[in-house]
Amino acid sequence: MNPALSKIEIIQMKKIEHIGIAVKNLEDSIAVFEQILNTNCYKTESVDSEQVNTAFFSSGPNKIELLEPQSEESVIHKFIETKGEGIHHIAFEVENIEKEMQRLVNAGFTLLNDKPKQGADGKLVCFLHPKKTNGVLIELVMDYKAK
Amino acid sequence: MNPALSKIEIIQMKKIEHIGIAVKNLEDSIAVFEQILNTNCYKTESVDSEQVNTAFFSSGPNKIELLEPQSEESVIHKFIETKGEGIHHIAFEVENIEKEMQRLVNAGFTLLNDKPKQGADGKLVCFLHPKKTNGVLIELVMDYKAK
Repeated sequence: MNPALSKIEIIQMKKIEHIGIAVKNLEDSIAVFEQILNTNCYKTESVDSEQVNTAFFSSGPNKIELLEPQSEESVIHKFIETKGEGIHHIAFEVENIEKEMQRLVNAGFTLLNDKPKQGADGKLVCFLHPKKTNGVLIELVMDYKAK
Repeated sequence: MNPALSKIEIIQMKKIEHIGIAVKNLEDSIAVFEQILNTNCYKTESVDSEQVNTAFFSSGPNKIELLEPQSEESVIHKFIETKGEGIHHIAFEVENIEKEMQRLVNAGFTLLNDKPKQGADGKLVCFLHPKKTNGVLIELVMDYKAK
């Protein structure tokens, strides 16, 4: 038997990389989450292409990302207008984002971007359309240097 | 100097223990999340006191919990009626739930239950009121045997 035939590649989501939370005011919300998590915000970053300002907190192997809209054009502004402040998305860390995107397309899911794009915190990212994921906006993230 | 005075206890959320997702139909949603996460559901459990049926998946150090209402009395039924299917809460693992509850009350947050209560998956749990947490329903969880 050819040993290559018995070697089946199992691709799995490695962990929850972060949870994205839509907030109206980043400064006020940083103070709130510093109290909840009992740890300091370790980074803020503006992602102009997405029209958001972000702030990051660690919780063991996971992160919390606060997202404040920079303008009314931001999808975060529209989210808050419709649903109010709250959890916006879950991001899973993957080993190889292109392979994972292909696997999910083959399984019938819809990607919101055909190619990985540059996200916050030095990551390549891709989103899945929530219509086929029980209303959950799911992001795949891969470390830029990981591949 | 008294060494006890220099010993400040730092309590932090240890990790995201799980994300809770409200779904209409558990069986259908298990199939969807088995595809997304590329792993099998490892447990289902009914929590009659909360009127929910739950299903669990692993993602590295974290879990995904699907929540299906058992009846119209379930808070999950009301959540889906108002907001649709989607992310319902974030649960953080804590070392000592009573101490963490006290710390958060002292910081001005509101607890939804005064004493830890029995949750799914053999845990003691407590929820924070989302009005002071940017609309995010936050659960504290402690392993029943951990203390």
